[in-house]
Amino acid sequence: MSLPESSACVLIVDGFEEIEAVTVVDVLRRAGVQTSVLGVEHRKVTGNHGITLNVDASLQDVVSLGVRFDAVVLPGGMPGAARLRDSDLVRDFVLTQGAQGAILAAICAAPIALAHFGVLQGRQATCFPGFEAQLGGACVVSDRAVVIDGGVMTSRGPGTAIEFALALVARLVGPDVAVDLGRRLLVQVAV
Amino acid sequence: MSLPESSACVLIVDGFEEIEAVTVVDVLRRAGVQTSVLGVEHRKVTGNHGITLNVDASLQDVVSLGVRFDAVVLPGGMPGAARLRDSDLVRDFVLTQGAQGAILAAICAAPIALAHFGVLQGRQATCFPGFEAQLGGACVVSDRAVVIDGGVMTSRGPGTAIEFALALVARLVGPDVAVDLGRRLLVQVAV
Repeated sequence: MSLPESSACVLIVDGFEEIEAVTVVDVLRRAGVQTSVLGVEHRKVTGNHGITLNVDASLQDVVSLGVRFDAVVLPGGMPGAARLRDSDLVRDFVLTQGAQGAILAAICAAPIALAHFGVLQGRQATCFPGFEAQLGGACVVSDRAVVIDGGVMTSRGPGTAIEFALALVARLVGPDVAVDLGRRLLVQVAV
Repeated sequence: MSLPESSACVLIVDGFEEIEAVTVVDVLRRAGVQTSVLGVEHRKVTGNHGITLNVDASLQDVVSLGVRFDAVVLPGGMPGAARLRDSDLVRDFVLTQGAQGAILAAICAAPIALAHFGVLQGRQATCFPGFEAQLGGACVVSDRAVVIDGGVMTSRGPGTAIEFALALVARLVGPDVAVDLGRRLLVQVAV
């Protein structure tokens, strides 16, 4: 099978949510999206349930190389999401990639980072329950697992991670591939 | 909150399915279950979608120390599940822990390992579609996400991983904790 080539990166920091990060990487790679796990602070990063991942590259290296991605994904978890929000490196990278047309995607607590960067202003978005007040000028939607508004995609938590990843596949590769992949993952979701 | 103390281990080899392994570890640790990621062959293990995890200990060390667990979990993924099936170390460990009362749990392709070890003989079990013929003397159930028969628990694939993990929480910690945790993960499943 020949798939359209597309690329994505997942930004991780200590305290990231493991199910969310790993699900996105796994599902995107199954769909043929070239997916890089980028470490914001270190090359070995530990999630908030003690699982340590080795990253593919550092965010700083990727910035220096001027690599462009079709999607930038921020997994949730606290304090991970707050670290993403408070990083100037992450802010500049997200804004630059977004300006170049990348989909900006965040799940769980991580939409607070997109809000802090000004990305959610006037857009529909969702997040993990309890973080709504930190979504700034967004129009918060609480009854959908995945909310898409233009180039911005947000989702709610570990239980919506596969649906979030499949929504990314639908956008980056195509809805048919996403539906077929969902079937092979043994989930039934609308994408 | 004080939770009953219980322990589990997740056995990983190169070629393991990342969503399944990480979901179980994440969810069990959220429930207060002391959960160890054990490397069968190495201390750095790469899943079949290129994600590398650092293990907590080697299976050989755990065997040497005589550690007992309340549950032993085998994630799926190919060729990972075949490697688990073909390892004498894994077989002896699984049979010893099972004889000492541990729940033996496997998801996706990994029930073929339990079948090979003789654990599924005459029991109800499930697996990823296509592996049914390798379940030996099991009574294969295909319409449920999680199948429990005595001390043996099996499940079907990445899309059922959270439900599988919550079923383990229900057995190891209690159904109320599992229901509450499912809610906090933003999934609605019967446990």
